Amino acid sequence: MIAATKSCLAISGGVGGAKLVLGLSCQLQADKLTIVANTGDDFDHLGFTICPDLDTVMYTLADLADRESGWGQTGETWQFLSALEQLGGDTWFQLGDKDLATHVVRSSELNKGKLLSQVTHDLCQSLNIKHKLVPMTDDRVATLIHCQSGEVLAFQHYFVRDHCEPAISGYSFSGIDSANRCPGFSRALQDPDLGAIIICPSNPFVSVAPVLDLDDTAELMTEHAAPVIAVSPIVAGVALKGPAAKMMAELNMPSSALGVAEYYADRYPGLLDGFVLDLADASEAIAVQALGMVPLVVKTVMTSLPDRQQLAKDVLKFASELCQA
Amino acid sequence: MIAATKSCLAISGGVGGAKLVLGLSCQLQADKLTIVANTGDDFDHLGFTICPDLDTVMYTLADLADRESGWGQTGETWQFLSALEQLGGDTWFQLGDKDLATHVVRSSELNKGKLLSQVTHDLCQSLNIKHKLVPMTDDRVATLIHCQSGEVLAFQHYFVRDHCEPAISGYSFSGIDSANRCPGFSRALQDPDLGAIIICPSNPFVSVAPVLDLDDTAELMTEHAAPVIAVSPIVAGVALKGPAAKMMAELNMPSSALGVAEYYADRYPGLLDGFVLDLADASEAIAVQALGMVPLVVKTVMTSLPDRQQLAKDVLKFASELCQA
Repeated sequence: MIAATKSCLAISGGVGGAKLVLGLSCQLQADKLTIVANTGDDFDHLGFTICPDLDTVMYTLADLADRESGWGQTGETWQFLSALEQLGGDTWFQLGDKDLATHVVRSSELNKGKLLSQVTHDLCQSLNIKHKLVPMTDDRVATLIHCQSGEVLAFQHYFVRDHCEPAISGYSFSGIDSANRCPGFSRALQDPDLGAIIICPSNPFVSVAPVLDLDDTAELMTEHAAPVIAVSPIVAGVALKGPAAKMMAELNMPSSALGVAEYYADRYPGLLDGFVLDLADASEAIAVQALGMVPLVVKTVMTSLPDRQQLAKDVLKFASELCQA
Repeated sequence: MIAATKSCLAISGGVGGAKLVLGLSCQLQADKLTIVANTGDDFDHLGFTICPDLDTVMYTLADLADRESGWGQTGETWQFLSALEQLGGDTWFQLGDKDLATHVVRSSELNKGKLLSQVTHDLCQSLNIKHKLVPMTDDRVATLIHCQSGEVLAFQHYFVRDHCEPAISGYSFSGIDSANRCPGFSRALQDPDLGAIIICPSNPFVSVAPVLDLDDTAELMTEHAAPVIAVSPIVAGVALKGPAAKMMAELNMPSSALGVAEYYADRYPGLLDGFVLDLADASEAIAVQALGMVPLVVKTVMTSLPDRQQLAKDVLKFASELCQA
């Protein structure tokens, strides 16, 4: 474990990342953990500003998340969506009746001129979330998926509407050049007690890269004394959730934990101090080490709450060891 | 009954008016009935443009209306509202999960630049409504309630949030001077086959007056060859729904069917050719006649669908008799 006086910064996308975030929140006091959620997935739909990753993390921390799917709310109902269908509205994005309240409140407050980070703070307060959850930015960044067909898709069109079916040739983040970190994200990076930066097991391309590419974030993290540790979202060659493995194959990378480590080493040289692989990928640890990262091989598949807490403990202990190294 | 070749224009507010509208829709072919709904009650709430009277009539015609309350949808659920409450949102206006789809679609289409009458047409098509339902205007008119305390309230604040409790000193329609009838309303008034203008049993002050005060509507109707008939929303001194009787008392008018007839005669001289009173108010018929209107005394309380059909038949027959007179 990192010392109790040290704080932790966690970077997360949606479902996979949120699992480790929940584990970390069980291990760390409220003022010792800042969670930064990707907002590159955010999009405007039916007049709402929808922030899927932010909501998944928020619902997970509030113990509202659907345990089966990992996203949306438990006990969700779909009366709105049925009525919307009858009215000929767009129903490809699943908007549950409860979930809708989040989108209505957020959109209404944003329209009044509030910043996304302020609205997120208020929502988290209403849901009794103690740890700091912040969007990566208050500006608009939109992840675009470049398909091998030449088509460019808004992320949710690729991810939800088209079920990740199009083969991709790349991705980009529209608006990122003029976007800034939100104040809470910058504060966490400047915290003199920062003892660990943890990149949760989220999609390296579309969940983590938008956060790292924001401003001088990757540079700041690379230069930071605190160890930067990524947990592989790929286990035994497959992504536990989402299109990461499929994307790697299409981008001509090996779909493996090592492939993820290589990608980070290539795109963000010197960023990662540690890399966490699942037991199933133990054989890749030596090659990871050769990339200049310290490997940690533990169980990373989180099916239960104790799994999440155990991985959080393992990662925090790893950070502490890297600090002392 | 008016001749089958003749068409009918009905003016309606919410629940009470919608009952007679439904009856009329059972008696008249789709192309022979235009229903104009009051939009003075419309308001912006949580980022939505909400049109309570239009929706009540629409749901009633689509057989979706809750039969108990007369407003909202049957089998409605309230998951959204519970979640909204948890998030600290405004919950004084009841937004059901199904109902919400209407507000989302309407607001989204209005924001794209569509006119309210176009959006209403599209919604009605989706709901298989055959008769023409139009908002009184595509412009914004807002009914304001002037309280005896000096306070001025937006209509839904008075009606829903404050349960009609404040004593009123008057009412006004903000924006009405620059508002125009929507095209469908003007077309119905110009229809050479127009054989009856029926003012449904709706609140004369806040449901009917906004429609009549729009443009030269009252003048056009007064000069029109087709008979103009109002059905009293007051029966035996009480309003079957809503604050009409309470308002009359506060405005120093007798809370009676005769009081309604006197109000119309005073505010819109010569407008009404016929006035329909309930059997309970038969004794007021002579005084109504003295105002220059032909009285019709029939059962106006509509508790069942056959009641609605019967009142519609009675009113259409009355119109036909007035035409021949």
